[in-house]
Amino acid sequence: MAEFKLDASSSQCSARAGTLSINNKNIKTPVFMPVGTYGAVKTLSPNEVSSIGYELILANTYHIYLRPGIEILKKSKGLHNFMDWNGLILTDSGGFQIYSLKGLRKIQSDGAKFQSHLDGSMHKLTPENIIDIQRVIGSDIMMMLDVCPAGDESLKKWEKAVDLTSEWAKQAMQYLNNSQGIYDKEQLLVPIVQGGTNKELREKSANELLKLDASIYAIGGLAVGEPKENMLETVNLMDGLLPKNKPRYLMGVGTPIDLINNVFNGVDMFDCVMPTRNARNGQLFSSNGKINIRNSKYANDNTPIDNESKSPMSKQFTKSYLHHLFKTREVLGLRIATEHNLYFYYELMKIMREKIIADNFHEWRKKFIAKYERGENNG
Amino acid sequence: MAEFKLDASSSQCSARAGTLSINNKNIKTPVFMPVGTYGAVKTLSPNEVSSIGYELILANTYHIYLRPGIEILKKSKGLHNFMDWNGLILTDSGGFQIYSLKGLRKIQSDGAKFQSHLDGSMHKLTPENIIDIQRVIGSDIMMMLDVCPAGDESLKKWEKAVDLTSEWAKQAMQYLNNSQGIYDKEQLLVPIVQGGTNKELREKSANELLKLDASIYAIGGLAVGEPKENMLETVNLMDGLLPKNKPRYLMGVGTPIDLINNVFNGVDMFDCVMPTRNARNGQLFSSNGKINIRNSKYANDNTPIDNESKSPMSKQFTKSYLHHLFKTREVLGLRIATEHNLYFYYELMKIMREKIIADNFHEWRKKFIAKYERGENNG
Repeated sequence: MAEFKLDASSSQCSARAGTLSINNKNIKTPVFMPVGTYGAVKTLSPNEVSSIGYELILANTYHIYLRPGIEILKKSKGLHNFMDWNGLILTDSGGFQIYSLKGLRKIQSDGAKFQSHLDGSMHKLTPENIIDIQRVIGSDIMMMLDVCPAGDESLKKWEKAVDLTSEWAKQAMQYLNNSQGIYDKEQLLVPIVQGGTNKELREKSANELLKLDASIYAIGGLAVGEPKENMLETVNLMDGLLPKNKPRYLMGVGTPIDLINNVFNGVDMFDCVMPTRNARNGQLFSSNGKINIRNSKYANDNTPIDNESKSPMSKQFTKSYLHHLFKTREVLGLRIATEHNLYFYYELMKIMREKIIADNFHEWRKKFIAKYERGENNG
Repeated sequence: MAEFKLDASSSQCSARAGTLSINNKNIKTPVFMPVGTYGAVKTLSPNEVSSIGYELILANTYHIYLRPGIEILKKSKGLHNFMDWNGLILTDSGGFQIYSLKGLRKIQSDGAKFQSHLDGSMHKLTPENIIDIQRVIGSDIMMMLDVCPAGDESLKKWEKAVDLTSEWAKQAMQYLNNSQGIYDKEQLLVPIVQGGTNKELREKSANELLKLDASIYAIGGLAVGEPKENMLETVNLMDGLLPKNKPRYLMGVGTPIDLINNVFNGVDMFDCVMPTRNARNGQLFSSNGKINIRNSKYANDNTPIDNESKSPMSKQFTKSYLHHLFKTREVLGLRIATEHNLYFYYELMKIMREKIIADNFHEWRKKFIAKYERGENNG
């Protein structure tokens, strides 16, 4: 059975280090999950993702449901086999994706109806069938279907979203307990606290979902356009509402600084397209700030991409070469940048964990942020 | 000094196995050169290309001259350093590329004037400055500037092309001998026999160029739209015209069957974008013929991509997964297919060499082609 063990807690803030054990794998937290929307972390092979050190990735139920579709995954006996990934997989439910399909979707009391952006076909995801789908996918961690409005939506919309999310969560947990998986494995089901940046709604949402006694709690509805300080305040509020002995997963966050500040506030799990997507736009993260490799100042820069990086390719190749690869749209450039950023995120989580265990996270955080923000690479 | 040693010759046809030694590297022939137009074999890292077994790649002077440009390569001390490639590099001169720029180029008696397809700037390549450029690139094998009409051009055009190519070749060799390289290395200069599929023109071109006593002779002006039997006849003719003790390089060729049939006719060196470009369109070569992985019949095919392949990824992943990666435009799909095809081409050259040395190339060829053409994967 899945287990979460707290290995250490900061004496000066809510930061914690833990071990999440699922299906005979131990995930050290705080942890960042690279995003492999369609069953591939963009540009990389599963072996490369695991070489960096990652043992848990995120895939997207909504996208995978549409392509390759559930029948194909059934034949492959799940996504792990399909993509030959030996680590764990968390699948996002698709609530966020469906909500983004303005005009093509309708949130109903019993689920979310939407039109495929690929072929116009109609589909409906319900609190129950999203579990069936994720059981076929074989996700180690399944997310519940939630309602996730944009950051600037009305309070009324947010209230409705919270109520429906709580209602669906109850139904989902019941469905889970009264039905069976198809593989011989444990599949956790995670409720998502909603409520935007509104204190009362967050409390209401958390209180409803805590009744379900889930193994992990996710914080949704942030990083959807709200001001950054509101996000931090909300996570800080959640820190007080969610049980200390369970992992907290902040969905869709974020920049390196976001990760640090939310670990500070007690978050254990993160996912974000930022390291991979920004890489494909030529933006590299480093301890000296961001490197926009398309900048013409790098055309003639024969220093290694980043000598401090753990990525072999970032030591092997020069900024000048990577600049050239981006200018000529060579796929190799996307790969170098993606590996670079995923190494950077992995090492960032690793060092945070070490600092929490040594109980000097607090000091380290100030120094890291100062160096990153004055970064010679910035601007 | 560069050297070419014949290791074996078929007793039944013109096929030969040799060793081309340049700059302390020994290239076993027949050899196929993957194309790295801009200093990167598309989608792969230099380490991956060399892991397959390749020690000699082709890059394109014309493209590299435009991007990143010669100043940047000067600062990197050449292309080998710039891309961190430990093998050898042959650079095509750009004659073919310039000739393809219809309307944007003018062939003059002293060189080829053209307008950049990138920014409209005017440039002129001459028999001399193409050597200067390739000396900065640091190519181990430099190609002369030639005039390369399309396969369906008039005889008069081809005559002019042959005469100008011969004239330029004389000037180039003289320039080479009276000037110095900038790195401490040998850089061979290769003339290109022109003349399309016309016997008299080919003879004239070869006779002129043989006077230069070059170390390698290239056959240009084929695979430019002429019927395949005319290509084979012409190469067969060249086999009788070119000296046996020097490598023959057939430019821009070809399919697996083309390689086999031209090795049969005494060709030692090849380059072609086919394995890499076709890979990116989802076409994989195998000993059972071509696999068009986008074909819907592969959506549910859980067998390995190709169990006979030496490519680790082609054994690791299923056709179903690769089909999905192409459908969702995942870069990983391009990589898997590219590695697959480059492994296939590498192994094809290797087996031809083995068969020539064992003197059963003739028999092997018939069996290989029969299996390939009835290939279960075809159609």
